[in-house]
Order: sequence, then structure tokens, then C-alpha cells
Amino acid sequence: MTELRLGVIGGGQLARMMTPPAINLGINIKVLAEAEGSSAALATTQVGDYNQLSVVREFAKTVDVITFDHEHVPLAVLEALEAEGVSVQPPSKALAFAQNKLSMRKRLGALGMPMPDWAEIQDAATLSAFIEAHDGVAILKTPIGGYDGKGVRVVRSAEDAADWLANLANFGGSLLAEEKVDFVRELAQLSARRPSGEFLAWPLVETQQENGVCSVVLAPAPEVSKATLDTTAEIAKAVAEGLGVTGVLSVEMFEARDGRILINELAMRPHNSGHFSIEGSVTSQFEQHIRAVLDLPLGSTQPHAKHAVMVNLLGVDDKNDFIQAYGSALAAHPEAKVHTYGKSARAGRKMGHVTVIGDSAAHALAEAKGAAAVLLRG
Amino acid sequence: MTELRLGVIGGGQLARMMTPPAINLGINIKVLAEAEGSSAALATTQVGDYNQLSVVREFAKTVDVITFDHEHVPLAVLEALEAEGVSVQPPSKALAFAQNKLSMRKRLGALGMPMPDWAEIQDAATLSAFIEAHDGVAILKTPIGGYDGKGVRVVRSAEDAADWLANLANFGGSLLAEEKVDFVRELAQLSARRPSGEFLAWPLVETQQENGVCSVVLAPAPEVSKATLDTTAEIAKAVAEGLGVTGVLSVEMFEARDGRILINELAMRPHNSGHFSIEGSVTSQFEQHIRAVLDLPLGSTQPHAKHAVMVNLLGVDDKNDFIQAYGSALAAHPEAKVHTYGKSARAGRKMGHVTVIGDSAAHALAEAKGAAAVLLRG
Repeated sequence: MTELRLGVIGGGQLARMMTPPAINLGINIKVLAEAEGSSAALATTQVGDYNQLSVVREFAKTVDVITFDHEHVPLAVLEALEAEGVSVQPPSKALAFAQNKLSMRKRLGALGMPMPDWAEIQDAATLSAFIEAHDGVAILKTPIGGYDGKGVRVVRSAEDAADWLANLANFGGSLLAEEKVDFVRELAQLSARRPSGEFLAWPLVETQQENGVCSVVLAPAPEVSKATLDTTAEIAKAVAEGLGVTGVLSVEMFEARDGRILINELAMRPHNSGHFSIEGSVTSQFEQHIRAVLDLPLGSTQPHAKHAVMVNLLGVDDKNDFIQAYGSALAAHPEAKVHTYGKSARAGRKMGHVTVIGDSAAHALAEAKGAAAVLLRG
Repeated sequence: MTELRLGVIGGGQLARMMTPPAINLGINIKVLAEAEGSSAALATTQVGDYNQLSVVREFAKTVDVITFDHEHVPLAVLEALEAEGVSVQPPSKALAFAQNKLSMRKRLGALGMPMPDWAEIQDAATLSAFIEAHDGVAILKTPIGGYDGKGVRVVRSAEDAADWLANLANFGGSLLAEEKVDFVRELAQLSARRPSGEFLAWPLVETQQENGVCSVVLAPAPEVSKATLDTTAEIAKAVAEGLGVTGVLSVEMFEARDGRILINELAMRPHNSGHFSIEGSVTSQFEQHIRAVLDLPLGSTQPHAKHAVMVNLLGVDDKNDFIQAYGSALAAHPEAKVHTYGKSARAGRKMGHVTVIGDSAAHALAEAKGAAAVLLRG
């Protein structure tokens, strides 16, 4: 067999959802999981600590390329592997920007990308000045380790950040202050890029958040101007190329009330904003990520239907694992594609999602929300 | 976790293709494979001989339902498990008809289903008389163990079957003679049925065979009369209910030159005629089979596009495993969904398939055949 071997570090739902297209494509997928019984248990071939070079090196020997379920593998580990000739996609030089929001802002600035105003914060005075210059409010972020609303805080004075300012060393020595954008909605541009350069984007989507966590995705984003479509497409390509990203990239953006499109966050991997593509697109983000990191030709990103709507299943308590009401949800919503991630129940946890596609955006949204509501009731 | 556990006996490509929807649905899939390194290796939890009750019983203890990649598990093994309270879907009483073509013909006859003329053959004289009564030709089948053109022979005299007639005990004591139907094409009606009775069909498809093996499937079948659609839908439901089938059922039929629709073969599992549904339908045959055998509500069988075309990848030699030309095929055919089954190369072996969906049947066929041609060249 000359089969291709894909290595994924991390056993979360993204590694789990890479498994079906790997099976379909005939790619041998292997996962290095943090623990037994992860979301990606079926494809797990090794359990170990991804912070240890020896562990990751052992895993790398069994695959043709290393990619990721998350962005937390230490750069030093990846740089060491790259020096040994391992194909790491996206490469460490790109992941450096994903792992540090301050580095990301600096690099995007150098590329001339549109962003909220921002500043590096190392003391209370600089933060106070930034807040004062921005109508008395700022978004303060820890440059390292934040996700899904964690490591993010709305501050109206330097005192609001006293604890972080007193422990700057924990965050790499700096915080990141950003303009609190008055936005009408959030958009995300999903794309994929191969090491050899091929780049392809999906239609722009609208993402809706609840408490900092993605809740609903509408694909394509409704009522978007031609100018915005052009801008977002250009941004995605410029970011992917400018930061040297390979695999799937999600660029999350604000559509500001004044019309500006401003880059919020980047994810250099399949992302919640692209789950709709499993059913909604000729090539899903998970299949495309696999093709891209193996430097295989990309697949068509054309939609399967006029509209796709995805609704997240966020844990409600430590009992409802969304299996109890499974039958009821499927019976009432035969068009709904219910995905669960094999996780034990916990409030706020991303436990699964529901996608519905069709000619009517309103119908798809109602069906997806309807199925989710049945599952959430348990 | 209250997750549902699906047990599949057999590690072929059908078990392999059940794995992606099991992952998506959050169903814990386990496979009892004949050997290590099967097509369904990723989901394999046990390797052993399915002819041995002790082996299958051990496997059954780890799952909520037993279903199948193939139809070869001895009825005695399944009956013993059923007596012990194991859920076997489809049940042994249905599989009895799938395992013996003569029993199937008798049962279909009792249900009044349209079939080619047929006769049970236990001696040369009866066969000679059947051939004489049918324009000097008959299709002779071994009732047990045939598939993909094996165990089937065109005979023009009893002498053509002398070897089979001399060894009747090998075939359960009888052969099955059937009228050689003058057909204009072959059709297949895919459907699924739950133990609790819910039944749902996909659109009728046309299947094209080469040397007795499925080569191309057109979904939906082109230019079918309303009468034929009604007839084939009625047949599928009557067969599923009349034979007590659960899970996916494929009814393969001839469209005779004289307009008759005649049942050729039955498959009580996901079937080559339904591979198009992975991309072509809101619910694929593999997802539906899982839902059906677990007695979960069935999903919509609506198409994702006007047309879906599937082309099989049959092995050309012992070298081309369809990986070498992978990149070239994907590059030239970005709409094509290429599936490979992780099998070592062998001439004539079902190694994979390609599906293309879209508004134009001609375009989909050309793209699917184009991608297959690149892969076949190696």
C-alpha cells in the first residue's frame, strides 16, 4: 500500500470530524490524543503529552504530515520536528501568529490588513490612555491561550485589569488592548491553502455568538454587498499568503456599523464557522484540510444548496449528553443532520451541532433550531 | 455516556463506509472483522471467524445491535443469538431469503411479486424442459454463495451444467433456473425499514453492469414512466415488509423489453447501487442503515442535486491501488468525490468508487468517468 498517512495532534471534535473524510478518501488518519476516550478515540493511535518533543517525535515517525486539532503545541516542539524534516502543516512560522494574538496583530498590521485599533499593553498608564482614546472602553486580551471568550475582558479602566497587569509574565509580558468595535454582525471567511500555493475559499458566512461562543452560522451570509464580498475574499487570501498558512484558515471579522470590515480572530485549522460545509459544500472543511495539508489538489467549495444553517449544541448540565432525545429530534426533523462529539455532559461545552441545508434560509434555520431545541430539552 | 453501540459483522467496504455516519451521529461503531488490516480496520474491535457462535456471541456482548457487512453469517449462529435476546438486524428470518436464492424466489412468489420465470432444478430432465420452454436458454444459479456474477451461468443444455448437477449437495440439493430476461436496462430500488415499521425509499436508480459487476449508477434513473416508478416503489415496500427486512434493502430489477418490471436480486444491507447517496442524498444509505437497525427515526432521502452519478473503481492489476494518480484525478476533477477502500490491488476487485452530483446528468457522468479514467491509468 502506498496510502497516505495523516497525523493529527489533539483528540477533540475537530480531529473527530477529520476522520470521516479521511475514511472516504482512503487516507490513513492517526491521532495523538491527550487521553484515552477522547472525541477522536476511533482514530487515536497514541496517547501522550503534546508538550513533550519525544512524544510528538514518536508520533511523527508514523505519519507523512503533522496537523492539528488545536493550536497549543509548543512552537519549540514543532520547530525541532521541522528541523528534522517532518512536514508540519500549518508550519510553525504560521502557527506562531495563531498562538500569540499580539504577534498576529503586528503581522496583520505589516500586511496593511484592516483591524480594530489596538495597542500592546505593558503598564496601566498605556492601558488608561488607550481606553481614554476609545470612548472609555477597550477589549483586553491575553495574547496567549485564550479561546471561546476565555482570556478576553471588557475594561473601562486600568483597575479592571489590575490582576492581569500584576501578572504580566503569565501572558508573555504583554496584554493586547483592542478597540471595542460597534459592529452590526460578525462574518467569517473560510479558506484553504496548500503548501504549493493553491488557494480556495468558501462563500462568506455570518456567525452569531452567545457569551463569546459560536451559536449559529448562516451560509452564505445574508444580504452582503459586492464590496464586502470582494474585501473579505481579498483579506482571506492576503492573510493566508502573508502569514504562510496551510490547511484551513478561518478569518473572523466584524462588520462595523460604519461599514468597515475588521479582522477579529484567526483560526489555522477547521473551525466552528465551517461545520456547515460537512453537508453544505461539495468539499467540507475537514476534507479540504486533509487535502491541503497533504498538498493534494483542493476540491470544489461550491454549495450543495442555496442555504446551510448550523446551530451548536452547547452543554446544558452534567447530565444531558444529547443522546436521550435523539430519537425525538430525528423524528421531528428528518432533514436535520445531528452531529454529537462523544463527550461527557458539561454545561457550556461544545457537545455537537446540527446542520440543515435547503432552498429556504428561514426553513433551514427553523429546522436546525427546532432539532437543537428538542436535544437541549433532553 | 448513554451512547448507542452498533456492531457490524464483516470488515469490508460496507462496514468501512458505515463508519463516517456513525462518527457524525455519535454512534459507537464496532466491527468484527475476519482479519487484521481489513477495509474497516479503523472501527475493528475484534478479529475472528463469524462462523463460530462463541466468537460472534463475545462480540454481541459489546454492542446494542448486530448488523452486517455481508450475508454470510450462518443462520444457526444468528438464531442462537436471537434466542439469547440479541437484536440482530436484519433478523435471521429475513436473511434466510438473502442467503438462499431459491427460498427467495419461493417467498417472492407467495407474495405475488413479478419475477422472471424460474424453476427448482434437481435433475437434468427438469433443466432440459425449462430450457426448451424458454427459447433454448436459461440462467442457472447456485442458490447459495453467489455474488457479483459468481455462481451464475448461462446454459443452453443440461450438459452445460453437468458439473453442478453432479455435485448438487454442494449447493443445498437444488439449483435455480431462471428465464433469461430480454431487458433494456437494470434498475435498483433502495429503501430502509425500521424494526418498528417505518419505511422510506430513495429515488429509483439505473445500474449498469460489466461482466456481472456494477459499473455505473445513475440517480435518479433517467426517463422512467410514472407507472414504473409506482411499480418499483410498491415492490420495494412489499418485499421489505413481506420478507421482514430491516435496515437498507436494495431490490435489483430488470426493465424487460416488453415493459415488465421483474425482480432480479435482493441485498439486505447497504449496496453498491446506493453508494451515490453518500453525496447525493440528505441521508446516505449508510447513515440510514445505522438509524434503521438501531430503530431510530429515518432521515430524509431527498436528493442534494438533480443528478448523482457513481462509477466503480475496479482493480486493474496487482499494482494500481488508485493512490498513485490520486493527485492528478483530484486536480482535473475538483467536483469528483473519490472513495478508496484501503484494499491491496487485485484485478476485478472493488477498490473504490467516484461520485459526482450536479444539475446536469451528462456533466456528472463525464466528470465521474473522467476521474475514474485517470485513476485507472494509475
